[in-house]
Amino acid sequence: MSIGLILGSSRTKSNSRKLADILIKGTAHKILDITELSLTDFEDFRHEPIPASLDESTQILLDFLLEHDVIVIAAPIYWFGIPGKLKVLLDRLSHVFRQPAFINQKPREAIILAVGGDRPRIKGLPLILQFHQIFDFLGIPFQHYVLAEGNKPGDVRFDQKALAEVAWLRSYLQKGENDEGHI
Amino acid sequence: MSIGLILGSSRTKSNSRKLADILIKGTAHKILDITELSLTDFEDFRHEPIPASLDESTQILLDFLLEHDVIVIAAPIYWFGIPGKLKVLLDRLSHVFRQPAFINQKPREAIILAVGGDRPRIKGLPLILQFHQIFDFLGIPFQHYVLAEGNKPGDVRFDQKALAEVAWLRSYLQKGENDEGHI
Amino acid sequence: MSIGLILGSSRTKSNSRKLADILIKGTAHKILDITELSLTDFEDFRHEPIPASLDESTQILLDFLLEHDVIVIAAPIYWFGIPGKLKVLLDRLSHVFRQPAFINQKPREAIILAVGGDRPRIKGLPLILQFHQIFDFLGIPFQHYVLAEGNKPGDVRFDQKALAEVAWLRSYLQKGENDEGHI
Amino acid sequence: MSIGLILGSSRTKSNSRKLADILIKGTAHKILDITELSLTDFEDFRHEPIPASLDESTQILLDFLLEHDVIVIAAPIYWFGIPGKLKVLLDRLSHVFRQPAFINQKPREAIILAVGGDRPRIKGLPLILQFHQIFDFLGIPFQHYVLAEGNKPGDVRFDQKALAEVAWLRSYLQKGENDEGHI
Repeated sequence: MSIGLILGSSRTKSNSRKLADILIKGTAHKILDITELSLTDFEDFRHEPIPASLDESTQILLDFLLEHDVIVIAAPIYWFGIPGKLKVLLDRLSHVFRQPAFINQKPREAIILAVGGDRPRIKGLPLILQFHQIFDFLGIPFQHYVLAEGNKPGDVRFDQKALAEVAWLRSYLQKGENDEGHI
Repeated sequence: MSIGLILGSSRTKSNSRKLADILIKGTAHKILDITELSLTDFEDFRHEPIPASLDESTQILLDFLLEHDVIVIAAPIYWFGIPGKLKVLLDRLSHVFRQPAFINQKPREAIILAVGGDRPRIKGLPLILQFHQIFDFLGIPFQHYVLAEGNKPGDVRFDQKALAEVAWLRSYLQKGENDEGHI
Repeated sequence: MSIGLILGSSRTKSNSRKLADILIKGTAHKILDITELSLTDFEDFRHEPIPASLDESTQILLDFLLEHDVIVIAAPIYWFGIPGKLKVLLDRLSHVFRQPAFINQKPREAIILAVGGDRPRIKGLPLILQFHQIFDFLGIPFQHYVLAEGNKPGDVRFDQKALAEVAWLRSYLQKGENDEGHI
Repeated sequence: MSIGLILGSSRTKSNSRKLADILIKGTAHKILDITELSLTDFEDFRHEPIPASLDESTQILLDFLLEHDVIVIAAPIYWFGIPGKLKVLLDRLSHVFRQPAFINQKPREAIILAVGGDRPRIKGLPLILQFHQIFDFLGIPFQHYVLAEGNKPGDVRFDQKALAEVAWLRSYLQKGENDEGHI
């Protein structure tokens, strides 16, 4: 099993990254960090023929999804939803989901870690409902998420409940790894 | 009363624009079209001191909000939520909401027109819940929205229910205009 | 086409009933009024064998669903959700949905009219999300609902937007009736 | 600190009860079990003068809320929401919330444990959004909930993630108890 971690914060030492680091420590993983992507303006792909070649960041996203069994998206909650730049990337799923390679080899699970400062376990729910619809549409099972509290940089380390949930998720992912090893 | 219309589609002849055109026809309004903005990558403003000067698009957004009584956001539903580029703009509210000018002179109402192809009246609800939280946070009253169906360009003209709702909203806005005239 | 209207208010002259009356005026319809049902305490049916005979109110609900093409549920929003007594009735769907008669002859559409006093178009959304899941589970198409404002008895007649939506729904239902006549 | 546990299942050995038992083991608590209440049909209290005396189950609910610092509601998810009989009880909050005794002495926190068989962490979210609105209206802080999976009786013991969350909540409540002891 390999984990693909998509980092959606614009800060390099974000609370969402800290939480993700705890989750993936000691596991086989790769990181796709949106701060390292130069995303051009969004274009609506839906009513055009699929172009012969994908734009660079769409190709990066497709390759990343193909490469990993479990996709973890770790992001801050900005204005009660997905951060703009991360959404600019995810909007490229409009091209990704029609690629034969993706249809034949989807990740087997998606996990969301989202950190917010304003009652995230309640006010983050529309974001979870949105990701639920996204992953249902993509055909990627989605059942686990952590809504953590963190306002100032580093704060998330004080959210004991989120840490307990991430600890559980970590053992869950490691168990998945071992189960796979048995096959 | 003046209406400020924010267009969130990347297409110039989008369904959401068509719907908005019906709403604002014959009213005093201005348009902020995100296709005409060159938005730089998002930056997290929350934990930094407010900079001496706002970046260009934040200033444009602030001025637009100050200038209008009613803000209408018309946008397609992309991946069950706010389009990426529009969200990159809205994330700049993190600076806007702390400006004294904004605190003293907010729009008196916000309206959302959102067009989607996949059961928008149901699957658009997380987006409405998100905007509810956004406008509550900003302190701008929000009670009216239209979730319209439109997949291919132009389709929205067949959504008779959405057209009836927009017709009502139009008379509602014109009534607001007249009421104001009486004062 | 025949409309089956389920009234979920405990009051006989409720706002939700007023709204429903406008919708069904002049159409072929029957009414199931929960004030006329004597509902015994709820029992959990899920992990028991289906009993030889259904209890009286489950049988009434089943027969009502079998008899109508379109089901309209008109109810007040109590504590941001389905009124208790109506939910006691709807919980009996646990028996209904496994009946062969129901599986073979479901209503072809469900419509919700819900009236609340506290920003119903926003605060009624969890109720709509819940009904969406209920009807998806039952396999009954659900796309139209009206969230209307009404606090004191009779207030709903002042909610012009809801009245416009109900007027549209009425013509929609009548059109459905005529379309069927053509077949 | 004392915990008031409201049991909303119609079964005496329900999954929700099992989960609640783990939470409250070793703590000072009392239980209000709806299977022991004989709830008369719901009546709409909102537009009537407050009666001189509350009906029996409203009085029981009021007394229970007054007596406890933390209210835990443990219930199955029926038809993606609150079970009918529990809702019949909770609808009586329409009387409770206007009682001076309640206004002066509210519980300081509410916690929800909800068990469902069909992707509860996703499909239980409208229920959590509803409780969020209920507790905000009542003025009782609400931030912690557990959505657990359990279909057949006893199944919840296999939901390791829910068990980890309940274990954390238990230490959280015990810490609250100790903190209070220090004062």
